[in-house]
Amino acid sequence: MREEQIIEEILHTLGEKTSSVKLGIGDDDTALLRWGKREILFTCDCLVERIHFSLDYFTLRDIGWKAMAVNVSDIFAMGGNPRYALVSMGIPKGLIEKIGEIYEGIKEFSLNFKVEVVGGNLSLSPFLWVDVSMLGEVKRIIRRDGARPQDKIILTGPVGEARAGREILEKRLKGYPTLVKKFLRPYPRREVLQWMDKGITFNSGIDISDGLGKDLYRILKASGVGAFIYPEKIPFSKELLEFAGEKKAFSYAWGGGEDYEMILTLTSLEWERLRSLTPSPPFSCIGEIVEGKPCIDSPQGLLSPNGFDHFSYEERNNQ
Amino acid sequence: MREEQIIEEILHTLGEKTSSVKLGIGDDDTALLRWGKREILFTCDCLVERIHFSLDYFTLRDIGWKAMAVNVSDIFAMGGNPRYALVSMGIPKGLIEKIGEIYEGIKEFSLNFKVEVVGGNLSLSPFLWVDVSMLGEVKRIIRRDGARPQDKIILTGPVGEARAGREILEKRLKGYPTLVKKFLRPYPRREVLQWMDKGITFNSGIDISDGLGKDLYRILKASGVGAFIYPEKIPFSKELLEFAGEKKAFSYAWGGGEDYEMILTLTSLEWERLRSLTPSPPFSCIGEIVEGKPCIDSPQGLLSPNGFDHFSYEERNNQ
Repeated sequence: MREEQIIEEILHTLGEKTSSVKLGIGDDDTALLRWGKREILFTCDCLVERIHFSLDYFTLRDIGWKAMAVNVSDIFAMGGNPRYALVSMGIPKGLIEKIGEIYEGIKEFSLNFKVEVVGGNLSLSPFLWVDVSMLGEVKRIIRRDGARPQDKIILTGPVGEARAGREILEKRLKGYPTLVKKFLRPYPRREVLQWMDKGITFNSGIDISDGLGKDLYRILKASGVGAFIYPEKIPFSKELLEFAGEKKAFSYAWGGGEDYEMILTLTSLEWERLRSLTPSPPFSCIGEIVEGKPCIDSPQGLLSPNGFDHFSYEERNNQ
Repeated sequence: MREEQIIEEILHTLGEKTSSVKLGIGDDDTALLRWGKREILFTCDCLVERIHFSLDYFTLRDIGWKAMAVNVSDIFAMGGNPRYALVSMGIPKGLIEKIGEIYEGIKEFSLNFKVEVVGGNLSLSPFLWVDVSMLGEVKRIIRRDGARPQDKIILTGPVGEARAGREILEKRLKGYPTLVKKFLRPYPRREVLQWMDKGITFNSGIDISDGLGKDLYRILKASGVGAFIYPEKIPFSKELLEFAGEKKAFSYAWGGGEDYEMILTLTSLEWERLRSLTPSPPFSCIGEIVEGKPCIDSPQGLLSPNGFDHFSYEERNNQ
């Protein structure tokens, strides 16, 4: 059973959302709640030993950092400002004495991104897992379902690096520090908020946790539109090209995931304004939103939105 | 290392809380945040396979119910009204097809207690765990640190049952449905909110997750006061007395935990008002707050606040 099917089943079990819940399960990266006169973003995400990380190559500080980063990335992807976090942890007995190192990684991240850890929970567990829940505030929301035909599709930075980094660590290869760091310590794209502060309007957005193809497809499905992508415009870092070559770099980018870059869409006019505001932009326009069914076309024909799905992870590894 | 020591270390790592955080890590059952003109309760708690439950005697529905209940209990203990929840889950591959049953338990609880699940996260995991985070609203907060000398100490219901229920299940004994149900499906004490709605003021409160002794001690430590307890006034259910006898019933109540009854303190005057409001009260007065150091005295001498600590669980089981 794939993740999206499971979510369908959960939706069916839990029933309709109430009027104060503006975005709920399956709608977007985070829930959006009306709270008095304000709106609140509420989200959670976890890292599980043997699924998301191995203690062979993650330090405990890296795990603390990344557990925070994946949540902050979801809040940025909604145009929100992360404020408070709870950290819930399951710890094997042998790691209890070292738990402070995980909190050092959490603290390092929190200072960088100004999010405050206000509580949490600790439990013994047969293996290590870290589940972070987070609250964010938001003035102008970026949703998945706002992409419109003729929107430019932009990427906030190079993709495919985290997947390559994971492979380098798993195979115990040497070198490629950028790729490895992208996997161990993703750096969420707060620039999105800065651009919004300068008046740029994004019609839709999502962060790339499961792969460019799959996450782009989520925007298309939610918005009821298609996309036309120019694969040669997808930005690859020098290190990724060195490691993988051009053809394999594309497959890392498209299906890899965990880059925590963002896919954003905006009108041509806003795209011109954004380029004039940022003389050396870190982002690339990789295509356009088009009318029609949610599918991804390209000069080379249709592209399958195949990305990383936690629930078909073993299948993918066996390919 | 015990849980309280670990929290000390975490506090030291994470540093001072900011002014919008009115209660943070280590202060109380939940965090208390100022959000615009309102206050928000923000909490999380988890159930981990082999630590908090065994699939030998918990149904998946029970696990869903209890994962919600332990959080709602924390919010009631602050005098708050639970509103929204996120459910984060780690699932072994063999349980994926049955995940709907966990959500049925969550739904059953949610309908009973009017808390809405607005999102969450699913991951593969070598073992089953469920981590729920929850938001609550609050008008008049009940804190741990508000107990004052001469306050009456009341219990909202019989204690020790959950610990006995666990033992009955672990030893595969027959009968004792009340004890077993208290362990599998705790029913948080929403009466506290109803009493507050009728104008009763509680000076302090906490829910019993780790045992009457240990949780009472938390109130004493936070408030800088002592307690005088009459052990014979601690309410035991008929089933617990049948199962354990009077002497052992006390040790289950004092050190057992997971009852999710509440300890509350209030002035004599408020106590009289509460008794006149509720003709057949489910609660008992078990003693009084006294001036002095945080220790628990009784006609039989000092009582050790020894309760359930997740981090010394194995030690306790080996006693």
